Amino acid sequence: MRAWMLPAGSDGYQQLELKEIGKPSPGPGEVLIRLRAWSINYRDFAVASGDYFGGKLTRPAIPLSDGAGEVEAVGDGVTAFAPGDRVQSTFFTNWVDGPPRRSPALGDGMAPGMLAEYVVLPETGVVPMARSLDFGQAACLPCAGVTAWNALIEGPRPVQPGDKVLLLGTGGVSMLALEIARTAGAEVIATSSSDAKLEKVQALGAAHTINYKSTPEWGAYVQEQFGGVDKVVEVGGAGTAEQSMQALGTEGEIAFIGVLSPEGGPNPRGLMMNAGTMRGIFVGSAAMARKLNRAIDVNGITPVIGKRFAFEDAPKAYDHAWGPESFSKTVIELDG
Amino acid sequence: MRAWMLPAGSDGYQQLELKEIGKPSPGPGEVLIRLRAWSINYRDFAVASGDYFGGKLTRPAIPLSDGAGEVEAVGDGVTAFAPGDRVQSTFFTNWVDGPPRRSPALGDGMAPGMLAEYVVLPETGVVPMARSLDFGQAACLPCAGVTAWNALIEGPRPVQPGDKVLLLGTGGVSMLALEIARTAGAEVIATSSSDAKLEKVQALGAAHTINYKSTPEWGAYVQEQFGGVDKVVEVGGAGTAEQSMQALGTEGEIAFIGVLSPEGGPNPRGLMMNAGTMRGIFVGSAAMARKLNRAIDVNGITPVIGKRFAFEDAPKAYDHAWGPESFSKTVIELDG
Amino acid sequence: MRAWMLPAGSDGYQQLELKEIGKPSPGPGEVLIRLRAWSINYRDFAVASGDYFGGKLTRPAIPLSDGAGEVEAVGDGVTAFAPGDRVQSTFFTNWVDGPPRRSPALGDGMAPGMLAEYVVLPETGVVPMARSLDFGQAACLPCAGVTAWNALIEGPRPVQPGDKVLLLGTGGVSMLALEIARTAGAEVIATSSSDAKLEKVQALGAAHTINYKSTPEWGAYVQEQFGGVDKVVEVGGAGTAEQSMQALGTEGEIAFIGVLSPEGGPNPRGLMMNAGTMRGIFVGSAAMARKLNRAIDVNGITPVIGKRFAFEDAPKAYDHAWGPESFSKTVIELDG
Amino acid sequence: MRAWMLPAGSDGYQQLELKEIGKPSPGPGEVLIRLRAWSINYRDFAVASGDYFGGKLTRPAIPLSDGAGEVEAVGDGVTAFAPGDRVQSTFFTNWVDGPPRRSPALGDGMAPGMLAEYVVLPETGVVPMARSLDFGQAACLPCAGVTAWNALIEGPRPVQPGDKVLLLGTGGVSMLALEIARTAGAEVIATSSSDAKLEKVQALGAAHTINYKSTPEWGAYVQEQFGGVDKVVEVGGAGTAEQSMQALGTEGEIAFIGVLSPEGGPNPRGLMMNAGTMRGIFVGSAAMARKLNRAIDVNGITPVIGKRFAFEDAPKAYDHAWGPESFSKTVIELDG
Repeated sequence: MRAWMLPAGSDGYQQLELKEIGKPSPGPGEVLIRLRAWSINYRDFAVASGDYFGGKLTRPAIPLSDGAGEVEAVGDGVTAFAPGDRVQSTFFTNWVDGPPRRSPALGDGMAPGMLAEYVVLPETGVVPMARSLDFGQAACLPCAGVTAWNALIEGPRPVQPGDKVLLLGTGGVSMLALEIARTAGAEVIATSSSDAKLEKVQALGAAHTINYKSTPEWGAYVQEQFGGVDKVVEVGGAGTAEQSMQALGTEGEIAFIGVLSPEGGPNPRGLMMNAGTMRGIFVGSAAMARKLNRAIDVNGITPVIGKRFAFEDAPKAYDHAWGPESFSKTVIELDG
Repeated sequence: MRAWMLPAGSDGYQQLELKEIGKPSPGPGEVLIRLRAWSINYRDFAVASGDYFGGKLTRPAIPLSDGAGEVEAVGDGVTAFAPGDRVQSTFFTNWVDGPPRRSPALGDGMAPGMLAEYVVLPETGVVPMARSLDFGQAACLPCAGVTAWNALIEGPRPVQPGDKVLLLGTGGVSMLALEIARTAGAEVIATSSSDAKLEKVQALGAAHTINYKSTPEWGAYVQEQFGGVDKVVEVGGAGTAEQSMQALGTEGEIAFIGVLSPEGGPNPRGLMMNAGTMRGIFVGSAAMARKLNRAIDVNGITPVIGKRFAFEDAPKAYDHAWGPESFSKTVIELDG
Repeated sequence: MRAWMLPAGSDGYQQLELKEIGKPSPGPGEVLIRLRAWSINYRDFAVASGDYFGGKLTRPAIPLSDGAGEVEAVGDGVTAFAPGDRVQSTFFTNWVDGPPRRSPALGDGMAPGMLAEYVVLPETGVVPMARSLDFGQAACLPCAGVTAWNALIEGPRPVQPGDKVLLLGTGGVSMLALEIARTAGAEVIATSSSDAKLEKVQALGAAHTINYKSTPEWGAYVQEQFGGVDKVVEVGGAGTAEQSMQALGTEGEIAFIGVLSPEGGPNPRGLMMNAGTMRGIFVGSAAMARKLNRAIDVNGITPVIGKRFAFEDAPKAYDHAWGPESFSKTVIELDG
Repeated sequence: MRAWMLPAGSDGYQQLELKEIGKPSPGPGEVLIRLRAWSINYRDFAVASGDYFGGKLTRPAIPLSDGAGEVEAVGDGVTAFAPGDRVQSTFFTNWVDGPPRRSPALGDGMAPGMLAEYVVLPETGVVPMARSLDFGQAACLPCAGVTAWNALIEGPRPVQPGDKVLLLGTGGVSMLALEIARTAGAEVIATSSSDAKLEKVQALGAAHTINYKSTPEWGAYVQEQFGGVDKVVEVGGAGTAEQSMQALGTEGEIAFIGVLSPEGGPNPRGLMMNAGTMRGIFVGSAAMARKLNRAIDVNGITPVIGKRFAFEDAPKAYDHAWGPESFSKTVIELDG
């Protein structure tokens, strides 16, 4: 089978190479999937450049955590899936339900990676696709979709109709959060440095948009203009968290996702006056992915794909996802 | 001013009489409202026939709890409202926020009633109308709308996108619940004895409909067909609660509203296997009314009015609301 | 090995017979336990008399769900337990965590029963004993202890310091609930028909006691005297639930456990005024058992054992548990 | 009456002066209290030195937020209190219940201060004392006690029996948290730089103690030794929050109180792996104070008073509270 691979010691996605390697076969409790589509997440750039948790890759690795395809075969004891099922991966291979459970995460050089024609995953790391989506749309969800769902709907302060939600930028997590928040009846306030992107965001249902170049004090602005928000999907990280606290309304929650800023952080006393909370989000469980898919089918949500690329053009997909034209999800596809 | 009144000892709404009485004036902490629209609830028939909690009226009374209009004047110390504000009543005159607080309920013969050209209410019993609604639409909300909101969104198990919600019949609470549930991204299953009404319900966004005449075992049917629901808005009462328990999915909630069945009830052990809960709902607080109005404005919800009647035709409105053609809310209006 | 067995078609625990049968051996994922102590629950009488869910036993069966002992051997793939570990059973063999999951329940004639010298259980149906307890004390917990924990601490309305908790009678669930409630800082109100037992209950930490013979309207009495309770551990069932609703304070919860009354039930509208809830409890998960054990070790809780019997005297233990002298848990033990 | 006062522009509690001023009288909705005991909080030093929110005092002010005494008279419309009632102040004068509500806070130079023989407070800023406490003990609660209660029991993650709770230092909040946590059945881990104080803490019920001088990496130590805690009562502020995150277990909560560190803060990504949360705590509502008092009466909690001083010796009480011998609460009292 063909697989895109990063070499040991990779310091950037530019080192991706298309290789011919052996097709894996499923052991007990495992599922063999013929993949049809993939998507790129911010974290995949960090893996490729050696800036992810584990540092540089110590051996060649197939990248990416997010993919969708068809089950081709199942190993002994697998009862939940059968050949022909349309499925997607889960970010963690064994976080089925409940509180976070440390388990290998796809595409980090240690666990399996997805950017190949086939993958073998443990049964616990697979969920059925939403019936209403194609492979490319489903491939948007394992990391960015589940993260957005977890941020908005899970935890002690789920978004309710009429709540105000603040989204930062127009990446995959924020755009999926936009769709989920609107499905839940929330009022969305979105930021970007690009007016053109803010127009797209408005067309997708955001009630208010803020260009953070012209309004650099967007946190205070949101507080003053809208009386504080109920939820911030904080993908910026430590560097934006101070303003996110300023934007927060009474008993609001900052769903903290962002890893863009490695050092320092805000003084959390910005949470005191409003009984605000900050909750750490690290993707989510297979159960959350199933709930998201249920919500997608019930409400006809279609993940927004900025651009689609062929499997053979994977490096171009990385280029696009990293560049200024990137919007929401960048998808790689293989024709049937 | 003109007011519709029920005599002491009234045994039915047929005894309504249009009277000319003195216009009230607001004392300290009170608000004088020039009313423009009203709506009828099931409970108003019980008040008129002497079957409500307190028994027959002991003195002549103005009926109805639900109305909307314009503030004409405010008493000393009122700061939250000013003349010209568009406002609606709250069912309880002093349940502002938090857990239930026993306080007089409008239109029961003891507290003020709304079906008059003017009413004086304590400041704690008034909330601003949703900006996007007209007086007739706003008048649908104080009892039925807030009840539906409380049932679906308040409490420990708020409805989330993709959840399944079971609604019984096509009365005001159920139809407002349909709109709120859809706004929250839920999948709605609705019952009625009329196929014509079920068609309307489907047009309003219900995914599935059940005629309970042709499917008398609708509880078991819902369990089997849909795998159990996350929420039942139980307006039927003790008489339907057994089937509602049968329809309940794991950790689902029966929001118990119904007072149609005065005697007996189901054995609650139907809740045991699924860790189901039943929660008592008695309308809701002013804070809930404000949150509902916020959700209405954000999402463009328009309460469904089955038929509108002129103030002078109030008895005909009662006739209609009681009859087989009734659907969702019946509204009474006074031209500006 | 020796095992107490009920014959097919058993109509009472009097038909228990001590048999010599083959010692089981653990398959993959299973654990062989040498049992040292057991306890009897109300439900075990129903199984013996053929009044439990499945009706009369269709084949000979070892009874009881609750036991504790030492791991003697483990099957392939078991990593959580090793020979010598002190362990107890869980009521359900595969409800590890999260919401209820239907899985076989011990001692019902279909799944394994515990009243034998050895048992083989799936790894998912075993938890380590609390370090501070002996085998007899640990054997009190799988059904009654976990039920009491679930009722008081799990769900949306966990007991908090200063809360009022109403307990019915002096059976195992109620007495374990008394200890857990006191550990959580709650004020306990307890009922019984025996003044002698109420004295014991007071010595165990109940602040108030009610003899329901002399105060047959105990529900209204609790409401009037104490202003309503935050929690009722409702072991009586449909027959007492009406009074439990009367006793409930604002936003209180009836944890509904009881199966004593097979027919009918109260009209749930007693929940409406107070926004009360009723939650179905059916024992609980292995995770709850682990949390209970942690709470036991931290706080030095010792389950109250009314009387202990030798393994050979199991029928006498049943006699005692059924009789008027029964108090809290009746335990059966085998010397080391 | 006599009152201790700070001059305008005060830069330290050393400027306290005992003055003779006019006794206030209660207006409508107000309560006149003859005070009998007071306690000092960390925040009172900041007010005295001009380092509190508002900066230096702009006019002479009576300091302190915490006091207890007897109602001497009530103004028009006050029904909740009567002369002779034993009462205590609340930190905020009008946060009765529910989410935080901005309202004047006692003793900050703008709202009334307590360190005088009499005070007039709005009815909403007074709660009845716990019946089982004396004035000095009750005076420990308005700020430190309610803060500890809010941190442990309010919010989405209340402490449950068997939970692990980490307390920092031996100040008033931490020592009241110790007593509340033990009442709720939690296992307490406490830190201090003084072995002598750690001995006292152990005698008060802490299971584990850590001298943070000899174990400067106490956060990692707690994670390794105890597997992470369910709650940190974070009184240190931004300077200790990094280690508090390291100490946090799965879905644990940092109740963030501390204002000791004015600048910077930790990168919140320490919350991501464990789905941890941080919640801002700013004392609490009158409803929380009432619940705390109920828990005190039910469980016989007695606030730990490090040292008691006479009213005339108030400056010495400040000296002690600021010094190295300070432990838990420092109280000022006036004999009857």
